Amino acid sequence: MAQTRTGEVVTQIHYARKGQITEEMLCVAKREKLEPELIRDEVAIGRLVIPSNINHKNLEPQGIGDAVTCKINANIGGSSLRSDATEELRKLKLCLSLGADAIMDLSVGPHITEIRRSLLENCPAPLGTVPIYEAIERVERCEDMTADGLLGVIEEQARQGVDFVTVHCGLLKAHVPIATRRLAGIVSRGGSLTATWMLHHDRENPLFDNFDRLLDICRRYDVTLSLGDGLRPGALADASDEAQFAELETLGQLVARCRDAEVQVMVEGPGHVPFDQIAMNMQRERDSCDEAPFYILGPIVTDIAPGYDHITSAIGATMGAFSGAAMLCYVTPREHLGLPTLEDVRQGVVAYKIAAHAADVARRRPGARDRDDALSRARVAFDWDRVFELSLDPQRARMMHDESHVRPEDKKADYCSMCGPKHCAMKLSKAVSESTKRRA
Amino acid sequence: MAQTRTGEVVTQIHYARKGQITEEMLCVAKREKLEPELIRDEVAIGRLVIPSNINHKNLEPQGIGDAVTCKINANIGGSSLRSDATEELRKLKLCLSLGADAIMDLSVGPHITEIRRSLLENCPAPLGTVPIYEAIERVERCEDMTADGLLGVIEEQARQGVDFVTVHCGLLKAHVPIATRRLAGIVSRGGSLTATWMLHHDRENPLFDNFDRLLDICRRYDVTLSLGDGLRPGALADASDEAQFAELETLGQLVARCRDAEVQVMVEGPGHVPFDQIAMNMQRERDSCDEAPFYILGPIVTDIAPGYDHITSAIGATMGAFSGAAMLCYVTPREHLGLPTLEDVRQGVVAYKIAAHAADVARRRPGARDRDDALSRARVAFDWDRVFELSLDPQRARMMHDESHVRPEDKKADYCSMCGPKHCAMKLSKAVSESTKRRA
Repeated sequence: MAQTRTGEVVTQIHYARKGQITEEMLCVAKREKLEPELIRDEVAIGRLVIPSNINHKNLEPQGIGDAVTCKINANIGGSSLRSDATEELRKLKLCLSLGADAIMDLSVGPHITEIRRSLLENCPAPLGTVPIYEAIERVERCEDMTADGLLGVIEEQARQGVDFVTVHCGLLKAHVPIATRRLAGIVSRGGSLTATWMLHHDRENPLFDNFDRLLDICRRYDVTLSLGDGLRPGALADASDEAQFAELETLGQLVARCRDAEVQVMVEGPGHVPFDQIAMNMQRERDSCDEAPFYILGPIVTDIAPGYDHITSAIGATMGAFSGAAMLCYVTPREHLGLPTLEDVRQGVVAYKIAAHAADVARRRPGARDRDDALSRARVAFDWDRVFELSLDPQRARMMHDESHVRPEDKKADYCSMCGPKHCAMKLSKAVSESTKRRA
Repeated sequence: MAQTRTGEVVTQIHYARKGQITEEMLCVAKREKLEPELIRDEVAIGRLVIPSNINHKNLEPQGIGDAVTCKINANIGGSSLRSDATEELRKLKLCLSLGADAIMDLSVGPHITEIRRSLLENCPAPLGTVPIYEAIERVERCEDMTADGLLGVIEEQARQGVDFVTVHCGLLKAHVPIATRRLAGIVSRGGSLTATWMLHHDRENPLFDNFDRLLDICRRYDVTLSLGDGLRPGALADASDEAQFAELETLGQLVARCRDAEVQVMVEGPGHVPFDQIAMNMQRERDSCDEAPFYILGPIVTDIAPGYDHITSAIGATMGAFSGAAMLCYVTPREHLGLPTLEDVRQGVVAYKIAAHAADVARRRPGARDRDDALSRARVAFDWDRVFELSLDPQRARMMHDESHVRPEDKKADYCSMCGPKHCAMKLSKAVSESTKRRA
């Protein structure tokens, strides 16, 4: 029977180390078609995390790590210029319907708590936040924030049921001058807030200084730490630089402290990275952070395509996942330009489902290609309904096909408007195949 | 002084082998910021082609090969269900404005010649075709086509000024039974037409049998041959299979014959290929085809995303170009579903400009990253106009930004609606940087 979680330490890694299999591990094992014992062992060594706050009641747990399929996260949330729980709920439902495996609520602005409550109630996927956004919202200037204030927010969010939090604990005071030499400086919101605070007070990073208090909260609710990369490169020119790797080394030390405290931990990654440096970046994280699951943002492989950064980053994300990343944080077409609309969210989620799936196929995970083969078989059979059904975005695929085939008899025809009936390769190929078989 | 081209053999490779530098080579050298001698030497050994029909009067030549930046081709053209010269001209102009380096007119249907004439007159980029489409258009059934008929069409198109033609010469009769064992069979339109013809007549591929006559036409007009991959995989399941590589070996033999005849030649590539097999495919082409420029279609890295195949394929194209492909044939979101609209063409061209550029950066071509750095600098300076100007699609980037910033004072503000004024990472980072410098 699976282990229910009660007591002072309720983390998955705590039970795994005792050799116990929790309900959440069972659920992940079933979803991934793997043995529960394997899931438990991977959780025990920290190569797999299952973000699962004991207070997130409707959670359907997801595993994130090397042993399981690649996951994608979708960021939603209001901004100070636009903040509306109904719209964010609409985005959430769209993300889930398109297959997002995790959701982050990055809300800033006036209605943070209500938006998060509403999202949590409707989110069976693990939900993450960046608590410093709420901490900052409660003070006049970011310098007014205190360590107690920030930890208080984290505890409140943990009690509310947040499954994972991004905390920029590894950006140290000593790193800031290195980062100021960059072309684009510090582009992480949490990172720049933390740097501003440290500079103003001439003190060390408050979450680094109070890391044990943070771990204590995580142990009691099983909040998974996502160690943020406050110094992720925000331009190709800054990729793989001293600042980025200095922070990564610190994150590696914090990973060890998390594991000692039986707190689940993953590490966040870049950013903007030229295509040829991505595999190296994945290896470097494995080496520096003892194989903690790597949760990467893109990376974007060129800076020159605002309006299309779901594509620039899906390219990097595929390479990242192929080279070992465990979860991909989506980027929408409106990245760098504005707050994403529903259509942007759709484009972002699908682009990332593509990246994660392409990497699963390329890594030859058992069964990963089955859906590809089934769709291609349906294509050959001109079974359009089945083609749409097996598509990542059935609604969009059907719409595009129907738009191009206005007459009802064309909609289900054994050809499409690309080639027309006379030149349809699929149709000709079928005839060739049948004729070859007759002769054989 | 540059060599003007007259006489029986007018191909770039002919002049290059005599040690002469043509106007076209000069033009390519200038565009690529390379020495004319290098361009000439690369053309001489066939590692670089400059498709440049002597009758394409308004041509601004492009080099395609390992020594120069990666190029992209956009396919346009009417179908038998929709054929309209005005609409195709509109697509052409859009492709050129977004930076397409080459154009293929894949028209089938009633107005092939007029559409091509109109496109050629308005196309400074090299223009290619698939002549079998026109040859088939002239007969009742594809079996009625003759070798003379097909070569006649090629000669007409050569006279008209077509710079390169896709010819499926390497798909032999012996390959067909191998291909019928596949999940998706023969998905190339030209390939399936050729297979149908060979099977019906029980004869060898007419272009393979008449390859010398084809070379003779090419020599007189300098038409570059693009050896089509009639057996490219049309599903992940068929990638890198016996049929694909059997044809590739034949193409390698034909490359040698082209070079003996002083005809410029490139080779076309897959198709649908899992991400992990792409680099191997690029290497295999180099080995089998003696480094002839590889012109690849995608490849698409998953079959499950109809409606988003500009993305599935831009991922593969980036990996392909990084691993050595010289030109990328774009795929639009409507691939597999219908004939692309103007918006689909826009999405396809930009996705491929991203892929080609990301690969140029990753291959560390001199100066490749300059535009990225300039755009990132403009971003840091909140110089939105300059950001848009440097973008691959300035119009779309500006539109997305303006949509998200309705009040005039927000449009040029030193923050955006993603973070709002209070949490803008860029703004905070600037202050951190200034403050750090003051203290130093």
